[in-house]
Amino acid sequence: MTDPDTTPASASYGVHSEVGRLRKVLVCAPGLAHRRLTPTNSDDLLFDDVMWVENAQRDHADFVNKLTQRGVEVVELHDLLARIMAIPEARSWLLDRKIVANQVGVGLIDDTRAFLESLEPRRLAEYLIGGLATTDLPDGFRSPYVALARETAGVREYLMPPLPNTLYTRDTTCWLYGGLTLNPLYWPARHDETLLMKAVYLFHPDFVGSTVWWGDPEREWAQATFEGGDIMPVGNGVVLMGMSERTSRQAITQVATALFERGAAERVIVAGMPRLRSAMHLDTVFTFADRDIVTLYPKIMDSVHTFTLRPGAGAPGLDITDEGSTPFVDVVGKALGIGLRVIETGGDVYASERQQWDSGNNAVALEPGVVFTYDRNTQTNTLLRKAGVEVITIVGAELGRGRGGGHCMTCPIIRDPVDF
Amino acid sequence: MTDPDTTPASASYGVHSEVGRLRKVLVCAPGLAHRRLTPTNSDDLLFDDVMWVENAQRDHADFVNKLTQRGVEVVELHDLLARIMAIPEARSWLLDRKIVANQVGVGLIDDTRAFLESLEPRRLAEYLIGGLATTDLPDGFRSPYVALARETAGVREYLMPPLPNTLYTRDTTCWLYGGLTLNPLYWPARHDETLLMKAVYLFHPDFVGSTVWWGDPEREWAQATFEGGDIMPVGNGVVLMGMSERTSRQAITQVATALFERGAAERVIVAGMPRLRSAMHLDTVFTFADRDIVTLYPKIMDSVHTFTLRPGAGAPGLDITDEGSTPFVDVVGKALGIGLRVIETGGDVYASERQQWDSGNNAVALEPGVVFTYDRNTQTNTLLRKAGVEVITIVGAELGRGRGGGHCMTCPIIRDPVDF
Amino acid sequence: MTDPDTTPASASYGVHSEVGRLRKVLVCAPGLAHRRLTPTNSDDLLFDDVMWVENAQRDHADFVNKLTQRGVEVVELHDLLARIMAIPEARSWLLDRKIVANQVGVGLIDDTRAFLESLEPRRLAEYLIGGLATTDLPDGFRSPYVALARETAGVREYLMPPLPNTLYTRDTTCWLYGGLTLNPLYWPARHDETLLMKAVYLFHPDFVGSTVWWGDPEREWAQATFEGGDIMPVGNGVVLMGMSERTSRQAITQVATALFERGAAERVIVAGMPRLRSAMHLDTVFTFADRDIVTLYPKIMDSVHTFTLRPGAGAPGLDITDEGSTPFVDVVGKALGIGLRVIETGGDVYASERQQWDSGNNAVALEPGVVFTYDRNTQTNTLLRKAGVEVITIVGAELGRGRGGGHCMTCPIIRDPVDF
Amino acid sequence: MTDPDTTPASASYGVHSEVGRLRKVLVCAPGLAHRRLTPTNSDDLLFDDVMWVENAQRDHADFVNKLTQRGVEVVELHDLLARIMAIPEARSWLLDRKIVANQVGVGLIDDTRAFLESLEPRRLAEYLIGGLATTDLPDGFRSPYVALARETAGVREYLMPPLPNTLYTRDTTCWLYGGLTLNPLYWPARHDETLLMKAVYLFHPDFVGSTVWWGDPEREWAQATFEGGDIMPVGNGVVLMGMSERTSRQAITQVATALFERGAAERVIVAGMPRLRSAMHLDTVFTFADRDIVTLYPKIMDSVHTFTLRPGAGAPGLDITDEGSTPFVDVVGKALGIGLRVIETGGDVYASERQQWDSGNNAVALEPGVVFTYDRNTQTNTLLRKAGVEVITIVGAELGRGRGGGHCMTCPIIRDPVDF
Repeated sequence: MTDPDTTPASASYGVHSEVGRLRKVLVCAPGLAHRRLTPTNSDDLLFDDVMWVENAQRDHADFVNKLTQRGVEVVELHDLLARIMAIPEARSWLLDRKIVANQVGVGLIDDTRAFLESLEPRRLAEYLIGGLATTDLPDGFRSPYVALARETAGVREYLMPPLPNTLYTRDTTCWLYGGLTLNPLYWPARHDETLLMKAVYLFHPDFVGSTVWWGDPEREWAQATFEGGDIMPVGNGVVLMGMSERTSRQAITQVATALFERGAAERVIVAGMPRLRSAMHLDTVFTFADRDIVTLYPKIMDSVHTFTLRPGAGAPGLDITDEGSTPFVDVVGKALGIGLRVIETGGDVYASERQQWDSGNNAVALEPGVVFTYDRNTQTNTLLRKAGVEVITIVGAELGRGRGGGHCMTCPIIRDPVDF
Repeated sequence: MTDPDTTPASASYGVHSEVGRLRKVLVCAPGLAHRRLTPTNSDDLLFDDVMWVENAQRDHADFVNKLTQRGVEVVELHDLLARIMAIPEARSWLLDRKIVANQVGVGLIDDTRAFLESLEPRRLAEYLIGGLATTDLPDGFRSPYVALARETAGVREYLMPPLPNTLYTRDTTCWLYGGLTLNPLYWPARHDETLLMKAVYLFHPDFVGSTVWWGDPEREWAQATFEGGDIMPVGNGVVLMGMSERTSRQAITQVATALFERGAAERVIVAGMPRLRSAMHLDTVFTFADRDIVTLYPKIMDSVHTFTLRPGAGAPGLDITDEGSTPFVDVVGKALGIGLRVIETGGDVYASERQQWDSGNNAVALEPGVVFTYDRNTQTNTLLRKAGVEVITIVGAELGRGRGGGHCMTCPIIRDPVDF
Repeated sequence: MTDPDTTPASASYGVHSEVGRLRKVLVCAPGLAHRRLTPTNSDDLLFDDVMWVENAQRDHADFVNKLTQRGVEVVELHDLLARIMAIPEARSWLLDRKIVANQVGVGLIDDTRAFLESLEPRRLAEYLIGGLATTDLPDGFRSPYVALARETAGVREYLMPPLPNTLYTRDTTCWLYGGLTLNPLYWPARHDETLLMKAVYLFHPDFVGSTVWWGDPEREWAQATFEGGDIMPVGNGVVLMGMSERTSRQAITQVATALFERGAAERVIVAGMPRLRSAMHLDTVFTFADRDIVTLYPKIMDSVHTFTLRPGAGAPGLDITDEGSTPFVDVVGKALGIGLRVIETGGDVYASERQQWDSGNNAVALEPGVVFTYDRNTQTNTLLRKAGVEVITIVGAELGRGRGGGHCMTCPIIRDPVDF
Repeated sequence: MTDPDTTPASASYGVHSEVGRLRKVLVCAPGLAHRRLTPTNSDDLLFDDVMWVENAQRDHADFVNKLTQRGVEVVELHDLLARIMAIPEARSWLLDRKIVANQVGVGLIDDTRAFLESLEPRRLAEYLIGGLATTDLPDGFRSPYVALARETAGVREYLMPPLPNTLYTRDTTCWLYGGLTLNPLYWPARHDETLLMKAVYLFHPDFVGSTVWWGDPEREWAQATFEGGDIMPVGNGVVLMGMSERTSRQAITQVATALFERGAAERVIVAGMPRLRSAMHLDTVFTFADRDIVTLYPKIMDSVHTFTLRPGAGAPGLDITDEGSTPFVDVVGKALGIGLRVIETGGDVYASERQQWDSGNNAVALEPGVVFTYDRNTQTNTLLRKAGVEVITIVGAELGRGRGGGHCMTCPIIRDPVDF
């Protein structure tokens, strides 16, 4: 789809490390979807608690501002969707897939579609992320079929589901070196996030032409689920992948095969994780803070079992090494050709458990030795600073309630390599 | 697919009431899938407790025997699958869909398929229902990729999932008058049940040629889920449908539309149910025991909100009536043109709650006034007998632990109409 | 215990309304007990989430400061305990009851006691509220018996339990007009809070001589549990009592009897509450904001069943009136001789549920028409302001995570009556 | 209290091993308390599921019959209580403690007491174990205060709580060699069981005069909880004690001290257990089947940490040895001076987990090499038989639903020693 005369923006996209200079990143601001969160439905929507949306928005804006001031180009999901909802074919493509009988119910399709078509692109984008409740339909768009909808689940029955986890853009798509994956997410409540991202990559002028290694939200992936929080393209041709409740071996082996076939990576190091809410993704217990510094939560990382995947002979062409009792950090360091310094979650046994829970190990790097973390994890932040890392804090009181920090809330699109 | 010279068996199939003479019924015996149930995994597999499989098999065999002795033709799912697994094209069709990268993982496909192809049809049928664990693979069929599988979840990682809820054949397919539905089930843990049934209807000589009103397990149904426990073709052109956690308005309106278009029914009465584990299906709180007798659990049925769907003008062509405060039983009785006598769950406040939980209201009729129920619900059984109903008991100590009784465990294939 | 020459401070104590001028109040600052909270133990300690203790302390200090600036005398529990721990007989009285074999275990009594006796009063007060873990014992105070303690539950085994719910001073004691109750709290995890308060009332010079209507933490109360969050001395001789999971009829009738016998009240209005986490106390769904204004959460208050208790003939001497279908607010208004204006939780169905959860209805009055609430419940706050109430906000991001607001965090000791 | 002319029956009481000839045993038949169990309240009452009470009674009677036929004297708790309720002072003693304001509420004491006093001893015994609901009060005994009771929790509000866990007589009292303990149980829902047992030991002519080592249900024990399922007097002066969620070090050290001081035992071996529902007591994962045979569930026993307590110098006089990595079975064998043969839970990974859950390791010995177990654990039973043990089965379909087997349901009162 590239025009011969102009190089598309996407030609420059690629993420070549975890800590190299961050140049472009995708985020998603809190909004309508979080206004739908209540004590009753938050479990279903994968949030531990409700949030004060206005303050979450303020804190998120501050995060974006700090990124921007440091020279990062930040793109925001509502903006991207609003942009493409102004393109008739994009709008049709997306609504054709969302406003169907299996989702909204027969008898509600025409009115729902008509209402959505009547909206300004930005308002439509808000509903796409924030969800559309039957009570949102204005009087002129309410068929008798609405009665059934209200009865099933009261006023919270949705015609389009709210997607509050879009806040965590890290999971939905991953740039791994020069291409990306469109991830099948584990929980059905998040599936539609990937459909929105596909629309962006299909229709947004800055994103068309990107290379997709793997994944398509219009296909069924069954056990092959894959979430970006588990995935780290650390450089040197290496990708780390947490094998967790949410990222399965069925997906890991497919992605590894795709990367090896395309020559995009030479090695995948798999962290076999225990299945715990507190360790839902690799990046909740392990991230990079500098070229040679990682911060991790030992209580969980000590029980990780490590495997290495390399290109192998025959089909499917993977060579699997069981790393046995070698610690994950050692396997990673060796693959990068350096010794890794480890900063553990700070404080006593209570504080470290609490800080890991509050995303204390979920740092995201601006460049080598400069990271963003939540303000509340003061002890871990202090340890990072003592190790020479510059720590820029963001307010986590509201944003952290879905159990994700700076790493979870960012999907790097352009990040430089680092030397090892 | 019918041969011009022979009338296929399926030409006579059809269920025309809830209590008319039962002539042919589908069941599924307990087996390997229930041997996989443990305290740790039973929640995921939707069972409240583990069962003693040998005794569950004995009690199920007794149920089948009693049906047979009363002149019902009983077909069993393992038998049906064993029969079609002897047909090469059926075996290929099913394994092509089950043994794929998204399920078993790349690198395990060839060996897994080879192992399954090496089996006798009956043994293969057992694995299709009982699940295939990585530990079931003999040494000659174990590639190095098995290491990853074992790590993700220990020895319980499955290459094909166990399907213990096949025991409840009621849910997966429904004969509604002269045709059937292939139901998209609510829980992902049950999705593959419908695929097995599609294979039966595609390839088993006694089942080919059946009319399918709606449903296809190879399509994605999103919110349109539909379970037979909620559905009752009571006769007189009426179908009752519980709108519950598991059976959604998105599905109900599609099925109603399909039935009306094909002239298969004239009216659907929707019971809007509260969302509770104890009321997961309509048939857990309401069943027919005779032409004019129903047994129900008032504590839940009193909060049902009733709607009537009838063919309407235009597309999608449903006319919806909100029955307001009229009790469900009265709406049903009026639609059948009779007065319904109600037998409530027996005993005091404790006993009735316990008996409902133990499937006390989940009766299945052999013919008008003759029903099967569990032995343990002695008080409800006594009330039914006092009302003149013949009650044949089956042992529920093990079979009932998945919260289903005789109605849940049977999928009628041929049942006569009754006069109203 | 009063000296004939000096009037004790406690002679002036008394709470005569819910909204009259607040003159003296007891609070408890967050501290060590909240540093012990982790994701693993927070359920046992009755918190929904962990908190950032430093910020909770800052926000609590701000609340205290605002109270003080408005002329309220604020006393703090750590201060009170530090004061009495400097009194040898008070220290002995309390440690004799805390450091016993049934709590710390034989073999650990002497060392634990010796360690605590070695501490400055303030440090000892911190451990009394914050708990004493086996790991807190310095080397010189560690007998071999510590080995068993560590094994039972790792490093979190306590010699004195942490009492994080002291933050909610409202519950532990209630001043009802001229005397107080020493409440038996529902959860065993909170029982020791009342023992600390008894020590204060026995030994603190400002508190000795207070009249105790009912309650003694050294007795066993079985089903007779009573928590201040359910209790409101609204004036006019009336006390409101929520009959909830935590405040039982066994206690309510005892307290009513005691109040009537002593002539302290003439009427108790009982709010029979549904048993829900979100409605754990009456003050989580209903508080006064002005002489004639209440703020309430209709979804729960609508299902309250109201009774009135009055002095009756004979023993135990209660006259019970079932108020039937009369709304609680109407019964209360009539008893006060005024019409009550109702401000409901603000916002749409999502926002109101969220704000009730975030203590939106948990206002505490400084004087008629002036209340403190959390900043985050902006919609309810706006409605109160529109009704003419002055709303002073406090930061709830951390303090609110145990599901309590300003009303829960304050135990009024002196509050003026209001005219009705 | 012994008469100089007659030796009381209790003079012969004593339990001197886990497998010596069982001569007298206490059980409690299922009854009214289990008729109160419903899906809603079973969690609170510590049962995983409801049971069919009639069949549970049949199966329990069969167990008693088999014990009797093998020469064991079986005493049953309802019988013991009925016997003492015919003794006016015993009746007064017990009702004075049960029918108090803190339990039944003021205003309901007189009527409740009058109703109970009007009953035959056997009927009263049934209510003492089965609980008394407000709905059980006949019209003549219903004061207006009943209205409040009904409102708090509907018709299930109790005046005396049901005690369904009396079925597990093992926990409440333990004979350890020549004396017994009256155990403070962990869950408040079980506390009253020990009060009933104290009444038996105070007033029943066959039980008066027994030596009590430790425990008194009329005192408060705080963290010092102790349950017989964790306790095994194995002989040779040794007592095994599981240190679990329910049996704490605070109690273990007190009992050990009491036994050592009275010369009743020389050694206590403590099994530090993980805190899991499936390992709630030591006897759910480890019991003796013969003089030198134990049956155990390795998955849990492998993580037990063992300590030995012996009489030591000074006060409290315990010498504590941390057995480090030595397996529990080895420590026990060495203490008995024999090598122990181990029979693990039978079957594959699924079956063994299921059988442990179904009390497969919860054997109780009639004499060396003869044990009772549930019928359903066929694989473990077969392994025991292959090892030469005679296995007598009892039906577990209903009895096992509270997670206890033959060991849990029996409290030995006289058992012979064995030689080692």
